[in-house]
Amino acid sequence: MREIYFDNSASTKVSKEAAAAAITAMEENFGNPSSLHGKGLAALQMLTQTRLALARALGAAEQEIIFTSGGSEANNMALLGVAEMKARQGGTILVTAAEHPSLLEPTKYLMQKGFDVQYIPVDEQGAIDIEFFVRMLTSATVFVGVHQVNNETGTIQDIIRIGDIIHEKAPQAFYHIDGVQGLGKLPVDLKSTQANSFAISGHKIHAPKGIGALWLKQGCRLPSLIKGGGQERGFRSGTENMPGIAALAIAVTTAIKEEERVIIMNRVRLALANKILAIEDSILNGPPLDKAAPHILNVSFVGVKSEVLLHFLEQEGVYISAGSACSSRKTTASHVLQAMGLSAERLGSAVRFSFSALNTVDEANEAANIIEQAVKEIRSLNKGRRKKNI
Amino acid sequence: MREIYFDNSASTKVSKEAAAAAITAMEENFGNPSSLHGKGLAALQMLTQTRLALARALGAAEQEIIFTSGGSEANNMALLGVAEMKARQGGTILVTAAEHPSLLEPTKYLMQKGFDVQYIPVDEQGAIDIEFFVRMLTSATVFVGVHQVNNETGTIQDIIRIGDIIHEKAPQAFYHIDGVQGLGKLPVDLKSTQANSFAISGHKIHAPKGIGALWLKQGCRLPSLIKGGGQERGFRSGTENMPGIAALAIAVTTAIKEEERVIIMNRVRLALANKILAIEDSILNGPPLDKAAPHILNVSFVGVKSEVLLHFLEQEGVYISAGSACSSRKTTASHVLQAMGLSAERLGSAVRFSFSALNTVDEANEAANIIEQAVKEIRSLNKGRRKKNI
Repeated sequence: MREIYFDNSASTKVSKEAAAAAITAMEENFGNPSSLHGKGLAALQMLTQTRLALARALGAAEQEIIFTSGGSEANNMALLGVAEMKARQGGTILVTAAEHPSLLEPTKYLMQKGFDVQYIPVDEQGAIDIEFFVRMLTSATVFVGVHQVNNETGTIQDIIRIGDIIHEKAPQAFYHIDGVQGLGKLPVDLKSTQANSFAISGHKIHAPKGIGALWLKQGCRLPSLIKGGGQERGFRSGTENMPGIAALAIAVTTAIKEEERVIIMNRVRLALANKILAIEDSILNGPPLDKAAPHILNVSFVGVKSEVLLHFLEQEGVYISAGSACSSRKTTASHVLQAMGLSAERLGSAVRFSFSALNTVDEANEAANIIEQAVKEIRSLNKGRRKKNI
Repeated sequence: MREIYFDNSASTKVSKEAAAAAITAMEENFGNPSSLHGKGLAALQMLTQTRLALARALGAAEQEIIFTSGGSEANNMALLGVAEMKARQGGTILVTAAEHPSLLEPTKYLMQKGFDVQYIPVDEQGAIDIEFFVRMLTSATVFVGVHQVNNETGTIQDIIRIGDIIHEKAPQAFYHIDGVQGLGKLPVDLKSTQANSFAISGHKIHAPKGIGALWLKQGCRLPSLIKGGGQERGFRSGTENMPGIAALAIAVTTAIKEEERVIIMNRVRLALANKILAIEDSILNGPPLDKAAPHILNVSFVGVKSEVLLHFLEQEGVYISAGSACSSRKTTASHVLQAMGLSAERLGSAVRFSFSALNTVDEANEAANIIEQAVKEIRSLNKGRRKKNI
């Protein structure tokens, strides 16, 4: 059976090039970058070149890149790190109500530790309510955490404007951007965001799982989450994940430089959207198509339960998501769509399609037919069931 | 030039089998285990099977395995986790003075947080001073951290006896074993150690860098270091490093089951030791050969600076270590050898040879000749320099 993989915001297939780099690091250039001999030096050179390539692709300096085990560690490192530095005086932590669990869960923990945590509301399209946000900022604000692109709806936050506002109203606050779903999909100009840090994940952009990075603006400090041998200039201890790092540098460079990839995913998204939004009682969740990220499409088919549709579609080789896959197989209603104030009906029937440049418009057309059929079938089954119940 | 890699305690070459498993996870079975569709399920099945295989190899239960980004994270997780649970009442933390930095650095941090940290002394062979240790244990002891095998000297700690003593004198204490250098070299019977946790690293046993695990005894609790999606049953959030995990399970199984591998590395070690310890003014650091781990040999050549010898040898394609490579290219004197009370002369001239089953006795013989020549040459250069200085 032909497989159509529309769940790229959960995870992507590792590219041949990224995998090849990982294999070289595993089987050939396998020295420990901390070893003083030639094999260690070769590994160190690979690490340095890789860091430089990644920094260049991001328009950043080498010293601003800290490799982590993934986006979750990068988000944790920023938020928990700032909190640790502010542990004595405390302060207010602001994140949107639609953040990834790797920012939301640490806020719950920090609340117990006595921090004042406030959730920035989002509107019905998932965008930050800027006026409200302005009022939330005070001289007590120590941390603001915002995603660049929402992982469930493709909502784009105005990270530059948010940076301006923070800079003006609460310049003391540490501004962290969760860039996991934005990188490679939207242009990134870290300086103009005035951010202090930016989280990156490998497996969303065709690098392997288990690798990520935190961009930390030069001059900013953060205590280490993992302490030990002092790797990553003391910011993150532990022998460097060389296969992952080598693969990540290639994946980031490709994701940023090959802009036609964005055009492809956008075209696939629009092709699918135009067809499935024509299905009766289908509702787009998130911003209008032309305002959303190029790779995410969230739709509710009224009366069709998310998971039922998901399983119907996988029978036909179409892989999608009911909500996100960032949490461990939870099937509770999406906190993102709840934060947007959607009705229970829309919440329960929302599905996410997410694309990569490996997808095609043909796949979109084929999937659209399968989806239309599935929705029809499920609705008629529901009708039958309802009749039976009478 | 033929290369002889005797720095396997710093890092090992990834085995073909482990690399193949990683490649499959990167390019084929690339779903997110948290995804609800078939591709997610396939990944979840791989994760479950892998965890089971690893648990079986360790004689443990599936639920006792927590995958981490490496040994450093596993060590941090145990120590910082216990400290967090005891943050209010405080308590005494005991680790040996010869631990890996990923246990030592967190103790320094915890000391600042108000914990009473005490370092268990080791004797001139690197072994824990048991009588002293017994006296250190009190009802205030909350954590005892001990390595199974020392990474610099191959000293084996009596982790079963230590467990007995803790069980008797301070049963309330959490007993953590850093098993990174022991796994695959010594038999492991986790239950008989009475330990609460045991740290594992992949890249020391032919799995890739960036993956490790913490064995956490059933019923024990630990707060998560990385918070978010609740993966690893809430113990460790972040999308699972599937390529690393798949490779780790194979590497651990091979390391434990193929006992002839230990015989090989031991034979290589003894062949090298017998020759180089015959060199004039060479001194074995650590326990007698028959009491040490099979894969580590630490020797001082009086008058020959460690790094000078290291660079001489790498010119000849022989890769060794001056101390360990667990820290980021530090060249300060080894804290392990210092803890053993060695003279400055021995400290400054200590080198470590570490072996894997990929090494051969032929390599040992060839390396021994090269080492003998190098030591002779360096000593005669030193003599010339001393004469000149007169």
